[in-house]
Amino acid sequence: MNDIDYMNLAYRLALKARGRTSPNPLVGCVIVRGKTIIAEGWHRRCGADHAEVVALKKAGRRSRGARMYVTLEPCYHYGRTPPCVDAVIESGIKEVMIGMKDPNPFTNGKSIAKLRRAGIKTRVGILQKELRAMNEAFIKYATKKMPFVAVKSAQSLDGKIATAKGDSQWITSLAARKYARRLRDDFDAIMVGINTVLKDNPRLNGAKKTKGLKKIVIDSLLKIPTKSLLFSGTNPSDIILATTAKASLKKRLAFQKRGVRVMVAPQSEGKVDLKWLFKQLAKNEVTSILAEGGAQTIGSVLKEKLADKIFCYVAPVILGDDKALASVVGFNIEKISQAVPLKNIVSEKIGHDILIQGYFDC
Amino acid sequence: MNDIDYMNLAYRLALKARGRTSPNPLVGCVIVRGKTIIAEGWHRRCGADHAEVVALKKAGRRSRGARMYVTLEPCYHYGRTPPCVDAVIESGIKEVMIGMKDPNPFTNGKSIAKLRRAGIKTRVGILQKELRAMNEAFIKYATKKMPFVAVKSAQSLDGKIATAKGDSQWITSLAARKYARRLRDDFDAIMVGINTVLKDNPRLNGAKKTKGLKKIVIDSLLKIPTKSLLFSGTNPSDIILATTAKASLKKRLAFQKRGVRVMVAPQSEGKVDLKWLFKQLAKNEVTSILAEGGAQTIGSVLKEKLADKIFCYVAPVILGDDKALASVVGFNIEKISQAVPLKNIVSEKIGHDILIQGYFDC
Repeated sequence: MNDIDYMNLAYRLALKARGRTSPNPLVGCVIVRGKTIIAEGWHRRCGADHAEVVALKKAGRRSRGARMYVTLEPCYHYGRTPPCVDAVIESGIKEVMIGMKDPNPFTNGKSIAKLRRAGIKTRVGILQKELRAMNEAFIKYATKKMPFVAVKSAQSLDGKIATAKGDSQWITSLAARKYARRLRDDFDAIMVGINTVLKDNPRLNGAKKTKGLKKIVIDSLLKIPTKSLLFSGTNPSDIILATTAKASLKKRLAFQKRGVRVMVAPQSEGKVDLKWLFKQLAKNEVTSILAEGGAQTIGSVLKEKLADKIFCYVAPVILGDDKALASVVGFNIEKISQAVPLKNIVSEKIGHDILIQGYFDC
Repeated sequence: MNDIDYMNLAYRLALKARGRTSPNPLVGCVIVRGKTIIAEGWHRRCGADHAEVVALKKAGRRSRGARMYVTLEPCYHYGRTPPCVDAVIESGIKEVMIGMKDPNPFTNGKSIAKLRRAGIKTRVGILQKELRAMNEAFIKYATKKMPFVAVKSAQSLDGKIATAKGDSQWITSLAARKYARRLRDDFDAIMVGINTVLKDNPRLNGAKKTKGLKKIVIDSLLKIPTKSLLFSGTNPSDIILATTAKASLKKRLAFQKRGVRVMVAPQSEGKVDLKWLFKQLAKNEVTSILAEGGAQTIGSVLKEKLADKIFCYVAPVILGDDKALASVVGFNIEKISQAVPLKNIVSEKIGHDILIQGYFDC
């Protein structure tokens, strides 16, 4: 095994906690002496020991003179736990391989400098591309103080999500829908517009993440029925109704009494100001949001340049009906050059469907 | 090298004539003695020797006792050339490996039976999947007496081909457009609706196929301007204007005088009856058509269940405008279950775009 192999092992350890560490990043760590792996660790959840500390505790005195492979620069600051960089220095580790610099301004290279000052040989950047992708949400959140926002659509090849009569079940195959449900587990919150709630009455549950997944409804007039399925089996405090002062105070108080969180947002063209909302959510440690629809909500997210990524499931059907509902609406585009650009798009087959992923400039 | 390797070589030889053998199929042939390849051949163009004959002529007397690998069952019937099956029997070849049975009802297994009766060991089906794909147009034409029809669209991720103002240049990248132009070389004819001619004034040229590529315009009222770019540099007899009795006789005669082919089709809902048209074209040995648009023409082709395949170039942009023009129109779909299904869809990256290919049930 070489440095890349050990880092790859640390990467795979980090992924074990996928979807469970927010607002912290995924981190994995391996301690190696000669060719022997003497300890492994990963950050399991926010509040638990950091990956380096988990591994150092397991290694104990054997870490003296050993090498550490850690996917992310050890933290420099006192957060929920003491700085890992000090624990690494005290452990007697003689060499540290770091996957990527911590983008968090509290650390961002400071620990690397401190390790080097302490005489510890330090190398940075092994598997960086994969590691940055793994923590793309954390990077956005740590650097911009805004949630990482992905939009999701499930559409026909010709870009339709429902017929003119509103029929939408099911455009994509079961395999794609299962995959899309697992996708929710990677996010802190799922977001939909009120029209989607009124039309589809979704539960918005994850596949495995049964607790703590937040459900955000953009509902400027608080039209959401009190018996919507998304309330059932969900902790009310995990439900966020984003509304405006136009909504009835009585309804607002009734929801708040149930324990549901109601956020009264400033208005932007009469609707919930999404930029304000996302900023507030970031302050509340919502680091990532999956916006699942409908077409208008996705349009608004794109218009405000708040989206980072798209997951577009394309089903092998054509509606061919210009009265059918398109996957994104709300823009007035005169020239192709004004269209919203995506970069680094990739495609893969999921069941009978094709999943196209890409990134927005934002 | 084993049987598959030799057949693969014959397959690659066949592909050398890609786009140039219509109405004949692509065929490649390799003659092997022991482990030595003694002759190779492929069918170069309609009217030229068939692949087997090319190879047998090269091998001469050395074919006695040798093995032949041929991608398609040798022909049984007198066509433009005498039956290949007799040439094979006379050559003294002792074993024939056949990629796929000839779907043409004149042969369709008869040559295989004849070879076996002549005491020649015959094996059928090596690399069949790839070989059937290579000759998919020929198979359709030979079995259904209708052209193989592919539709092509170049759209945004949300299925739009132009803005509400009609701007469409360019949604896809240069690489995809070059690729799409090379695609034309694989077809006998390119087809567009009159609106595409009026709006885009395309030349509809192939990349390499400079002669013989037919250009079909669906133009029920003969609105095509006499100076449209598609007339320039094209042999008038390669231009087919499909119109109806509603078009002015004077215009019709004027085009015919120029040598342009005008086909007066029966009407189907006031438009050119595409089924009739395609049948006539098949009778005139047009074995394959690439329908490039617009949205209405593609919609009509799909509605009449005349399409076999789709090439859908998806560009990494989103228009998000429900007034923008969708890639396919003309249907009234109430339920998702009524949508036009595709099968075996695959995707690949072409430049910055994604090309999705799939097949229709027809």
